[in-house]
Amino acid sequence: QPEEKDTKEKKTEFSLVRVKDTWKCQPGKKINKDRVDSVSAAKCESVTEKGTTWTVISPIVFTYKVTETQGLLDPGNDTLLLGHINDPQQLEDIKKSNKPIRRFVVIDQEVFQIYGSKLTEYLTAKNVSYKILALPTTEENKSMEMALKILDEVNNFSLDRRTEPIIAIGGGVCLDIVGLAASLYRRRTPYIRVPTTLLSYIDASVGAKTGVNFANCKNKLGAYIPPAATFLDLSFIQTIPRRHIANGLAEMLKMALMKHRALFELLEKHGSVLLDTKFQVDNSLYGCSSFMAASQATHIAIMTMLEELAPNLWEDDLNRLVDFGHLISPALEMKVLPSLLHGEAVNIDMSYMVYVSQECGLLTEEEKQRIISCMLSLELPVWHEEFTMDLIQNSLQDRLKHSGGLVRMPLPVGLGQAIFNNTSYEILHRAYEKWCEEV
Amino acid sequence: QPEEKDTKEKKTEFSLVRVKDTWKCQPGKKINKDRVDSVSAAKCESVTEKGTTWTVISPIVFTYKVTETQGLLDPGNDTLLLGHINDPQQLEDIKKSNKPIRRFVVIDQEVFQIYGSKLTEYLTAKNVSYKILALPTTEENKSMEMALKILDEVNNFSLDRRTEPIIAIGGGVCLDIVGLAASLYRRRTPYIRVPTTLLSYIDASVGAKTGVNFANCKNKLGAYIPPAATFLDLSFIQTIPRRHIANGLAEMLKMALMKHRALFELLEKHGSVLLDTKFQVDNSLYGCSSFMAASQATHIAIMTMLEELAPNLWEDDLNRLVDFGHLISPALEMKVLPSLLHGEAVNIDMSYMVYVSQECGLLTEEEKQRIISCMLSLELPVWHEEFTMDLIQNSLQDRLKHSGGLVRMPLPVGLGQAIFNNTSYEILHRAYEKWCEEV
Repeated sequence: QPEEKDTKEKKTEFSLVRVKDTWKCQPGKKINKDRVDSVSAAKCESVTEKGTTWTVISPIVFTYKVTETQGLLDPGNDTLLLGHINDPQQLEDIKKSNKPIRRFVVIDQEVFQIYGSKLTEYLTAKNVSYKILALPTTEENKSMEMALKILDEVNNFSLDRRTEPIIAIGGGVCLDIVGLAASLYRRRTPYIRVPTTLLSYIDASVGAKTGVNFANCKNKLGAYIPPAATFLDLSFIQTIPRRHIANGLAEMLKMALMKHRALFELLEKHGSVLLDTKFQVDNSLYGCSSFMAASQATHIAIMTMLEELAPNLWEDDLNRLVDFGHLISPALEMKVLPSLLHGEAVNIDMSYMVYVSQECGLLTEEEKQRIISCMLSLELPVWHEEFTMDLIQNSLQDRLKHSGGLVRMPLPVGLGQAIFNNTSYEILHRAYEKWCEEV
Repeated sequence: QPEEKDTKEKKTEFSLVRVKDTWKCQPGKKINKDRVDSVSAAKCESVTEKGTTWTVISPIVFTYKVTETQGLLDPGNDTLLLGHINDPQQLEDIKKSNKPIRRFVVIDQEVFQIYGSKLTEYLTAKNVSYKILALPTTEENKSMEMALKILDEVNNFSLDRRTEPIIAIGGGVCLDIVGLAASLYRRRTPYIRVPTTLLSYIDASVGAKTGVNFANCKNKLGAYIPPAATFLDLSFIQTIPRRHIANGLAEMLKMALMKHRALFELLEKHGSVLLDTKFQVDNSLYGCSSFMAASQATHIAIMTMLEELAPNLWEDDLNRLVDFGHLISPALEMKVLPSLLHGEAVNIDMSYMVYVSQECGLLTEEEKQRIISCMLSLELPVWHEEFTMDLIQNSLQDRLKHSGGLVRMPLPVGLGQAIFNNTSYEILHRAYEKWCEEV
């Protein structure tokens, strides 16, 4: 019950208004939300007999671009160097200036072996003063140590954090480490993501997450800082091994099952062709209809990802459809490292969850079969001996311990829709037994 | 000149609307800013012949409290454990629950020597399941290494990042390191600041900045993540050495000169008394008028700091009054480490800038004298032999190189106002000579 002393509390609300070169508190909650420049934060002061409390409410707006382009490393294309700039005046000034552009580039070592000469030719043709750092950005190396190594080199390069974004070229691990390093440098240096794997093309490219592994846990340290821009060029995918294409298809399938039936049908119908053609347009084997499928599938995957990530950039909302396949798989992935790729671990998790879903009555037997068949046609594993009931329980224990059951776990409902559902241990167990038996 | 192909560009604006458990793109820029829950991000898609660009606009709102209290470590006061919670329902649930509260506390080693037993008694009395980590949080130790050491222990504690904020108790260095560690852990774990020095009481306590030194540069790595709450208790200041009180007064003087004449006059009049009484109420030497001055001075300093920091939490706006005294002092401080305290280096910088200001005609000779006299009465250094013209130029070179002069440097105008001014090398040099001669 509220006590009487509470009535003595004095609350005053202020807004902050810019007056020439300084900011002044003005009484009243008059935040004009359309004029962020003139008024952009509110403070409430409450004075009780114990003291004063100031409450600061301060919004930060993140703006970032995800841009598809062709021939990102063709000297005729200036997206890589200028595509992140929004201000037309600034763009014109840079184009007019004859000062060389400076860029620090971190690239995965294997990607550098394939595209290194093309990249250096591009930067030379563009008269860029650059430093390229090629690193073995594998899951095992995804550590703060590597981030600090990058930061050392960035610092030696004397990077100007206002005008010289750090460019990351590689798979998800590379993009995550560089994103974290950039976010730390001078408390925030813009960075650019160039995904070169299918998985990072539709996943790491879109959100705000950066990170490194720590204490044997995936992405235990990191930040939620989106890149200034992500530049997508499907032509990188042509050199990706078949198994890694399937790896990316797993994340596509995730978005399909959660919210886009047409994408599921597309993967069901064209999945194996996409594996054959590697999402390329100039593949004569199948003609242009396969590229239409590739282009459509990547578009839908990115759109649906953006829909879910943009309103929840900092994951304040725990109800996340994008977490489908990601509740148990991180523990599996770290346990068997490096034998499973990320998307493979995710797919094993999804495969199990499909059984949970059916056990809950959210999927028919036929729908379940269609999903598992689709997974197999995408050449993805649907079971793993280390994916045990213990692993499931340990991974879910944080949620389990609060309710004796699973609280609001994303589960597919039919093909292309989902809900957050409470699931009991009994259902998890029955689904596990059936899953082990059938797949 | 815009070419004709630009006209082929198709722009569509979307907003994101929550539909049950998922988010849907809806055409139109209909962000209802009063209903952040239902609509919270906009995406613009522009399609050109080169490809598609999605632009994501996603706001994040930071809310944090700065709370004054008395007897923070008295078992009757539950601010330290619950003061950060905004939701009355959540507060009630915790108070009703008989589960022990869990807290991870990082405390400066010297502070622990003085307040350690009081802290453990408090936590024991409150039935808290705790881990206290006492560390030598000096400027020399302010490194990523120490942040990682904290993270190791946090991880061993199995901290729940949703409900168990990390508590930092100490001076600015301690608060900065712990803030960074917390910001990194699981991409963002709430933390609480308890400043125990006068400097951190009015400075580090208020804003969003965290950081560690790197490559011999102050705060080169860090993040802009505000604490969940800062708890202020002036009684900690009673054990602070006199020199460190002066150190804090320097940052107060900064705010006074930039935007609050009454604060300047208060410091001018009561400065030496504040040094004697250490901001305590129960000091019989001077009676209660000195505590009035102490209380007023800290209030105004915090209010003016909040006014400047809250609307520019991420320092996107380069015009920052709070940077006064901080343009050249970081290099000086790092160069002579550990001989100068932060506030001392800041004061030397401000002392020089006062001469620059007078040279620009912004201060009269009399005002200049009053400021320098005030600095001396606060027992702060006003000159240093390592503060050379070279150091000045190197520190300002980023701004200098773009314009041949100093672009928009905060300078005092009279007593309690300021502008951002362009200053030439000649003025900087003349001011330097006069400064070296006179002080």
